[in-house]
Amino acid sequence: MKIELAEHYGFCYGVKRAIEIAQEHPNSATFGPIIHNIDEINRLDRDYNVGLVEDVEEALKYDTLIIRTHGITRDNLKILKKEGKKVINATCPYVTKPQQIVADMSQKGYAIVIFGDKNHPEIKGVASYSKDAERTYVVLKESELIGKALGTKVAIVAQTTRKPEDFKKIVSFLTTRVAELRVFNTICNATFENQDAAADLAKRADIMIVIGGKNSSNTKQLFLIASSYCKDSYHIENENELKKEWFEGKNLCGISAGASTPDWIIKRVIKKIEELTK
Amino acid sequence: MKIELAEHYGFCYGVKRAIEIAQEHPNSATFGPIIHNIDEINRLDRDYNVGLVEDVEEALKYDTLIIRTHGITRDNLKILKKEGKKVINATCPYVTKPQQIVADMSQKGYAIVIFGDKNHPEIKGVASYSKDAERTYVVLKESELIGKALGTKVAIVAQTTRKPEDFKKIVSFLTTRVAELRVFNTICNATFENQDAAADLAKRADIMIVIGGKNSSNTKQLFLIASSYCKDSYHIENENELKKEWFEGKNLCGISAGASTPDWIIKRVIKKIEELTK
Repeated sequence: MKIELAEHYGFCYGVKRAIEIAQEHPNSATFGPIIHNIDEINRLDRDYNVGLVEDVEEALKYDTLIIRTHGITRDNLKILKKEGKKVINATCPYVTKPQQIVADMSQKGYAIVIFGDKNHPEIKGVASYSKDAERTYVVLKESELIGKALGTKVAIVAQTTRKPEDFKKIVSFLTTRVAELRVFNTICNATFENQDAAADLAKRADIMIVIGGKNSSNTKQLFLIASSYCKDSYHIENENELKKEWFEGKNLCGISAGASTPDWIIKRVIKKIEELTK
Repeated sequence: MKIELAEHYGFCYGVKRAIEIAQEHPNSATFGPIIHNIDEINRLDRDYNVGLVEDVEEALKYDTLIIRTHGITRDNLKILKKEGKKVINATCPYVTKPQQIVADMSQKGYAIVIFGDKNHPEIKGVASYSKDAERTYVVLKESELIGKALGTKVAIVAQTTRKPEDFKKIVSFLTTRVAELRVFNTICNATFENQDAAADLAKRADIMIVIGGKNSSNTKQLFLIASSYCKDSYHIENENELKKEWFEGKNLCGISAGASTPDWIIKRVIKKIEELTK
């Protein structure tokens, strides 16, 4: 039985990096959950004494604070620094970039359009870097820009997880409404890479195991894609769900995992498959 | 009988300005035809001794050369200046702008995309201002950009007379292919202004007279728009085609004119209508 991992799976680059940074800074706390996986948060707490705080008030109880991939608002960062906290920045570089673009472009007199969800922590952080809050618009649809004071120069960025097709609609709307539009494509393609890699592997595999929370929408999407190419596809949360009979008569077992599935869960699944099929 | 001109009609701002400049510089020649109307070119020749040359060789026979609205290539401009000619620049400001943008952006390391017809004099001129000819692409469709070395930073401008909808398609294509796209909407809306104004007037008029060459596509378009709102619409080239009976029982006569129709032809038409209806 051959076991093959998809070329891209599980954590994106930014989350992997943030967890490594957290492990390098024990006895600290992350500002907001570092990942949407309670097992992983518990592991960091248990093995590294990395806690979790939800707001500035709680944060002040710790000496060292880790900024998660989503980043943080400029005001909160100022408070932490003013209070003499050691701040470890694990903001994803793909999120730091729109923060810098918004700071730079607003400084240069461009009105700012941010395509994203104004309640999402990543977007709260990005928007906070604007030096012209009155001409900074966070929108999900182009219609929200109608009647807004845009001026002649606009810069636009996107939330990293948005769909390119929706971004294009807003760009298209703005193209003929301002003299100059600076489009910064800050969408990260990690999600699409996982999906493409799952499809590529499912085309060749006899059985596909997709690992991730049963409620995780990106894992469900991966499972749907795998199923469409490989009828013997299974969506599991951990190794206990595996059944020996699934693997009978199969030669190649493909594996993919959702964006919040830690590697140690994936490794346990692989080990269990090896035991079941040896 | 009330006669009313559309709010926008005939020559655009750039052509009006160029003709005024030509009249202020008698005993010269325009580099290429200043307008697509032979009557107007003949008038400038007859009344102001403003000739017409088609290339640099011919141009060298004159002391004073007038650059028409479309502009001129940088190389040709250099030759004229090197030869000590007096160069009068009547390039439309809406064309000077993309020339400057292309010079500036190529200098700053952006690849250049020009949405336009590579054989059109305006576009030849605009493209000649790029400082990176190898990374300057003149295209009419986004498919022409496939496989081109664009790099991470691209600036795009458009030929002044192109349709915004087609420009948006190319912008959309580039949006997700480069890290930064600078979109300069250099499309001039003079054509659309004439059309909108003709429609507004035709809605109220009892008769519409649209003046312009029978082969002029923009005049035909104006006539179509006028006809759709006012059934008694007529497309004429000059005052000799007017018929007294058209105006019987009418109260309001609306007038529009194509982009190459000189004011003096429009004035003659108005005068004739007044005579026919008094």
